[in-house]
Amino acid sequence: MAVNLAPPRAADLRPIPGVRIGVTEAGIRKADRKDLTVMLLDEGASVGAVFTQNRFCAAPVQVCREHLARGGIRALVINTGNANAGTGEDGLARARATCAALAKQLSLQPGQILPFSTGVIMESLPVERIQAGLPAAVADAAADHWLQAAQAIMTTDTLPKAFSSQVTIDGHTVSVTGISKGAGMIRPNMATMLGFMATDARVSQDAMHALALELAEGSFNRVTVDGDTSTNDSFVVIATNKAQHPRIDSLASAAGQQLKAAMLDVARQLAQAIVRDGEGATKFITVRVEGGKTAAECRQVAYAIAHSPLVKTAFFASDPNLGRILAAVGYAGIADLDQAGIDLYLDDVHVAVKGGRNPAYREEDGQRVMKKSEITVRVVLGRGTAADTVWTCDFSHEYVSINADYRS
Amino acid sequence: MAVNLAPPRAADLRPIPGVRIGVTEAGIRKADRKDLTVMLLDEGASVGAVFTQNRFCAAPVQVCREHLARGGIRALVINTGNANAGTGEDGLARARATCAALAKQLSLQPGQILPFSTGVIMESLPVERIQAGLPAAVADAAADHWLQAAQAIMTTDTLPKAFSSQVTIDGHTVSVTGISKGAGMIRPNMATMLGFMATDARVSQDAMHALALELAEGSFNRVTVDGDTSTNDSFVVIATNKAQHPRIDSLASAAGQQLKAAMLDVARQLAQAIVRDGEGATKFITVRVEGGKTAAECRQVAYAIAHSPLVKTAFFASDPNLGRILAAVGYAGIADLDQAGIDLYLDDVHVAVKGGRNPAYREEDGQRVMKKSEITVRVVLGRGTAADTVWTCDFSHEYVSINADYRS
Repeated sequence: MAVNLAPPRAADLRPIPGVRIGVTEAGIRKADRKDLTVMLLDEGASVGAVFTQNRFCAAPVQVCREHLARGGIRALVINTGNANAGTGEDGLARARATCAALAKQLSLQPGQILPFSTGVIMESLPVERIQAGLPAAVADAAADHWLQAAQAIMTTDTLPKAFSSQVTIDGHTVSVTGISKGAGMIRPNMATMLGFMATDARVSQDAMHALALELAEGSFNRVTVDGDTSTNDSFVVIATNKAQHPRIDSLASAAGQQLKAAMLDVARQLAQAIVRDGEGATKFITVRVEGGKTAAECRQVAYAIAHSPLVKTAFFASDPNLGRILAAVGYAGIADLDQAGIDLYLDDVHVAVKGGRNPAYREEDGQRVMKKSEITVRVVLGRGTAADTVWTCDFSHEYVSINADYRS
Repeated sequence: MAVNLAPPRAADLRPIPGVRIGVTEAGIRKADRKDLTVMLLDEGASVGAVFTQNRFCAAPVQVCREHLARGGIRALVINTGNANAGTGEDGLARARATCAALAKQLSLQPGQILPFSTGVIMESLPVERIQAGLPAAVADAAADHWLQAAQAIMTTDTLPKAFSSQVTIDGHTVSVTGISKGAGMIRPNMATMLGFMATDARVSQDAMHALALELAEGSFNRVTVDGDTSTNDSFVVIATNKAQHPRIDSLASAAGQQLKAAMLDVARQLAQAIVRDGEGATKFITVRVEGGKTAAECRQVAYAIAHSPLVKTAFFASDPNLGRILAAVGYAGIADLDQAGIDLYLDDVHVAVKGGRNPAYREEDGQRVMKKSEITVRVVLGRGTAADTVWTCDFSHEYVSINADYRS
């Protein structure tokens, strides 16, 4: 069902010096599938991360925050099949036990491990199965296992999501590779369900947190499938510092800007891949809002459109029932919005002028665009010069089927 | 598909002295259906109303606001099949032309008419068909045509919605009758799509606006189907002042409280009927949030639950995937919410204790409740004494079908 999303090829994913990845079948929820991943980092990596703003954040998110504050991260451990969220004190203990088990095996401190979980909420994490699986995962570790990890972290995803790029910084070529997962419960607020990116670039630890934030803002924080912000959203950015260029201490530097641009390109592909593989998605929709007083109000309008079940079902049906978009603009919560200033475009088709139907608009033009698999909705608010963009998908029978059957 | 909602019987709907209703087939969008309603008021009625907060409010809503400010309302005219929203200046002219046509026929001023439209957005109102149909609608007017009106204002509703009650005020029996319509694009913000209530009680015009507001707050402003706030939401309350009890000048008086309680009972039934007949609904869900610092934050949490596509599809599937409810609580936007204070109940079943799964909770207990057609979700926030309640329905394949096919 994924919209114009090709499965990644292992040969296209560049290994990152200083990162080795291993996966195994731990039998966490289902048999015969890889569901446990470890990501091992050489000493000296800088690590930044952003996490869900959901107040019901999962136990591993709470543990990650603690461990990141202490620094010296050397490994990540990721399980699918169980989110370890809504599990109270016992869930925290199980997340810590996972870290302790991997730390012991690697002769590290538990605080040097970051744990991640994704899957069903409010069920007890089978930590003994994770502990039993860790030796096989560590034994599997290799630099060219990014595709295996992208597969092992999937839940309702239909395709793994992984992208790479390269950029030259001060004459040195550095690589960027990332993976992500997620298809439902997607309305990230600081990060997606799970996203991991690494580069061998040299970046100070101080600059890493800002880098993670800015990458999330420009990618994962601009997508939505169903408006449900997950309890487990986590986005981690790793710089292994293996490259030979002068260290980047500030994103404002020329080298910082170059690296950020290259990483943002990968982050956007990862984020958009989640929408393209959105549960039941048949269309990829770009919602661009322009002419606002602030970017925040443009984003607010864009999300109102992107979350409207009526707009999303109209896209599914290829029905240019475009008044639903105007209705969503109207209830987006901008108190002093004047409908007489608003124009609406569907790709190149000018649908509404100053709040009313464009006299030149013909239904068949709207129909032509609605039948495409990639559509841009452009709303001009006519009250300023700010703009923002979010990406979303349509809302189909398949979404209901997937979420009515998810646990069965 | 409606959930435990019986069709109203004409004999149960009390006529309101001073109100006559007529309907006709005007062919506004479809042939062979009643789609035009007039409600004629004797001189001296008090009228209050609340309207959508959608900034893209429809042309008739704008005209209603103007006319209500001038007072002396004598008739309402309601069409289905076309919302006259997103229609700009031309739409305003067509709403005014509708009022002018009915005013001429009744020897009134156009400002004494309130116009209402519901149906497809951003299409031109066929005002000439309405004008042609008005004589037949007026000729049909009778005091016992409430059921006919409830049928004539339907769009995607599967059943008409109408309720009556009586109350004794200072020894005089007064009647209350109301009708409503709406099944999708339902997240009223001051009113539902269309709701009309009348009583023969004596109420001053000054008290009517407050009465309309308070009734809406306790009924239509507590329901949601899909979170889409309509462009046309209108709720009108009429007191024909025909009863003989002393005039109610303040809702705070004993008589005001009696009348309000009787009218609120009808308003809640009308509002809940919209949810019971929600597009594709198979379950009626009461979401009660207690233990908040303010009623507003309780409502915010309740709406986050009631709007979550994941929660709604889980109810459709009768799947006690209850972590999705906790996730919605977490992203409701209460910045200082402590998950360790939260309890969750499904009817009588205690599901979560202090943010984690209740050790005594058994899946089969959750399953038993989820299979019912009426379910109460109760969340205790553990941070105060305020509470609030909203009503919603589940999210089914049928919702997608209805909204993918609505215009076809």
